[in-house]
Amino acid sequence: METKGCNGIEHSNEIINKLPKVLPNHVTPIVNSQQVSEKKVLPVFPWFAIDIGGTLVKLVYFEPLDLTPDEIRTEGEILMNIRHYLVSNRAYGEDGFRDDALELKNIRFGGRQGNLHFIRFPTSKMSNFIDLCIMKHLHTLTFQVFATGGGAYKFEYDAVEKLKLSWHKCDELDTLIKGLSYLSKLNPNECFYYEEPQNEANPNKHPFKFDIRNPFLLVNIGSGISILHVESETSYRRISGTSIGGGTFLGLCCLLTGCSSYDEAIQLATAGDSTKVDKLVKDIYGGDYERFGLPGHIVASSFGHMNLSEKRDQATIADLARSTLVTVLNNIGSISMMCAQTENVNRILFSGSFLRINDLSMRILAFAMDYWSRGKIKAIFLEHEGYFSAVGSLREFIRDNDDLTTTATTTQN
Amino acid sequence: METKGCNGIEHSNEIINKLPKVLPNHVTPIVNSQQVSEKKVLPVFPWFAIDIGGTLVKLVYFEPLDLTPDEIRTEGEILMNIRHYLVSNRAYGEDGFRDDALELKNIRFGGRQGNLHFIRFPTSKMSNFIDLCIMKHLHTLTFQVFATGGGAYKFEYDAVEKLKLSWHKCDELDTLIKGLSYLSKLNPNECFYYEEPQNEANPNKHPFKFDIRNPFLLVNIGSGISILHVESETSYRRISGTSIGGGTFLGLCCLLTGCSSYDEAIQLATAGDSTKVDKLVKDIYGGDYERFGLPGHIVASSFGHMNLSEKRDQATIADLARSTLVTVLNNIGSISMMCAQTENVNRILFSGSFLRINDLSMRILAFAMDYWSRGKIKAIFLEHEGYFSAVGSLREFIRDNDDLTTTATTTQN
Repeated sequence: METKGCNGIEHSNEIINKLPKVLPNHVTPIVNSQQVSEKKVLPVFPWFAIDIGGTLVKLVYFEPLDLTPDEIRTEGEILMNIRHYLVSNRAYGEDGFRDDALELKNIRFGGRQGNLHFIRFPTSKMSNFIDLCIMKHLHTLTFQVFATGGGAYKFEYDAVEKLKLSWHKCDELDTLIKGLSYLSKLNPNECFYYEEPQNEANPNKHPFKFDIRNPFLLVNIGSGISILHVESETSYRRISGTSIGGGTFLGLCCLLTGCSSYDEAIQLATAGDSTKVDKLVKDIYGGDYERFGLPGHIVASSFGHMNLSEKRDQATIADLARSTLVTVLNNIGSISMMCAQTENVNRILFSGSFLRINDLSMRILAFAMDYWSRGKIKAIFLEHEGYFSAVGSLREFIRDNDDLTTTATTTQN
Repeated sequence: METKGCNGIEHSNEIINKLPKVLPNHVTPIVNSQQVSEKKVLPVFPWFAIDIGGTLVKLVYFEPLDLTPDEIRTEGEILMNIRHYLVSNRAYGEDGFRDDALELKNIRFGGRQGNLHFIRFPTSKMSNFIDLCIMKHLHTLTFQVFATGGGAYKFEYDAVEKLKLSWHKCDELDTLIKGLSYLSKLNPNECFYYEEPQNEANPNKHPFKFDIRNPFLLVNIGSGISILHVESETSYRRISGTSIGGGTFLGLCCLLTGCSSYDEAIQLATAGDSTKVDKLVKDIYGGDYERFGLPGHIVASSFGHMNLSEKRDQATIADLARSTLVTVLNNIGSISMMCAQTENVNRILFSGSFLRINDLSMRILAFAMDYWSRGKIKAIFLEHEGYFSAVGSLREFIRDNDDLTTTATTTQN
């Protein structure tokens, strides 16, 4: 027996046999999206996809504006219900939010006209979300779900067992590139860069004309970090990664400052001064370490002052948050730069929900890339930060070919 | 005008002009160690050298056992005074310690017979140390000091102004390799590896026959980290570094656990469980992320659980210390591995005071190198951890050629 995953890669029986044997007997077999495509029949509404990450669930929903009378008869009630709940609100309970600033209005998607909505809530509430769907009968509104991210695997049993849906798992990195490819073509302002990242008042943000056909590095900053060398729309490798990511920033900030949300942590970091916490080259050398071109102002040891009680007394929680941010960013920047040099590319795209409302981090990364590469490597950022895998998954679901290319191939490094 | 630094590299006037102009007029000009060598005259006793790092000062002292009657007459009293204070004690006040387990007894050094002593105290006490030397008239016991580490620059003015010594600055990475070269030849047990790093009860520690003539990576873990590609005893490059080092571990542990010393932090970490703090791949995926060969047990997001209050309540301070240690080590391991692959070397030597009393960290690093390189890259550790730059500086001071080769050349990457 051979099956195909959402990514179109063939799995041998050996791999299939290793998969957790937790699916109940009554579950609809996993539908192969390739088969969906081969039928050339678009799925019925509603169209949505979900990316269940380590910290955040990202959900994208396409709201059609060009329903036919037939569709209004068969699907209209379902869509009205969704409209009533999802599209009319910006917040859902305490933890769910619709990023209305990111909404893509009146776009053509899968051959249809409509609005693309972007919604997020914490992964820690995923089980509550499933229970809510049951309680409000939301799960009866749809029949199949395209899911990506680690939670597509972790929550498969719950979703299938409790919601009785067919659950299509897509690889998060495949869909990341698919989503990036799609949105960067659709939205002329999707990619941008800072001309003067050090200018806090006006860093001079410009749209960047991105061409996916030239090799680039894609650094996806979620809870942890994956670094991909993308050679074209159809070929990439995961070349590196680090566990020091957005989850580290938030986790450490919660511990060190008593804050309880990402927004609060970013606010604190924006107001803080990391030089009260970190030991700089000049704190050790009294100036630059000239021999190896290390200027006095760069960090020699993150949190390096904090072994001394008098220095701890002088550091505010804002300083600690700022140092945590700078530590995480310096590490990302340094590893990304090493990868870019090894792979000989001069563009680094930074994606991931860590960059949400995080202009400060983007400017720090942009400046670091420019400074350390002596202007050779450009940092590029993306308006829809952490939503690309969800969008890529929705593209898998729809599988029209009007603006999609073939499935990305990938090899592991 | 041209001058030479301790490393023998010629500096142009341009560089000299950039040096801080803080030396008082009465200071003896910096003596070029090359000139010392050319004279072929060994300096009078006492022989010691000092490495003033970001967190720790490391001091090595050679105690001669073969004094001539002439030397006893001219230098005997000085040496007795030093013996009385330095060599007879193991602790100096609250913060200074002699690592007597590391003492090299009855060795031949600079053509003389004697014992080599290893002493350390916190860099935060360096000013107190200078004051103590003045108070106890210790500075009258010697005329010149060979100093390395950032503090050789930072404390130059204080040492010269207050102690009226000629102060010879040596580059810390030059002396690191010189010291490593010397001690690895002198001490057959200097280098070692673990055959079974996962076996906590008996990791099977073996001496490693190290040959400096084959290229290797040298990862020096101090407050921050420098990664060198050493191609031979006479040539190396600083290829990378990270600010997430020993200072980060200690600083974060002080903040998160309330501990106040490195020894305490290591004790806590040894007792802790990082999986209570970090988000593993299986916490996100429910198992392995098979597509990219990431097993479920590896860390996806360091401190990734700590954004949730219920998880914070479950984590002990020992768990937090362990996670801090694992975070720092994983990052060092990952960056070192990338560098080793890029530079195509299969031996990584780990030095630096961070590895003192830190069997746990060495085993974690050894296992990580072995696992991720599939047995291709070997992690090698060193008995005298953080003392190599001080020893290399002392070699510069003595400059006999019986077991020294030429000065290392270096280029910056």
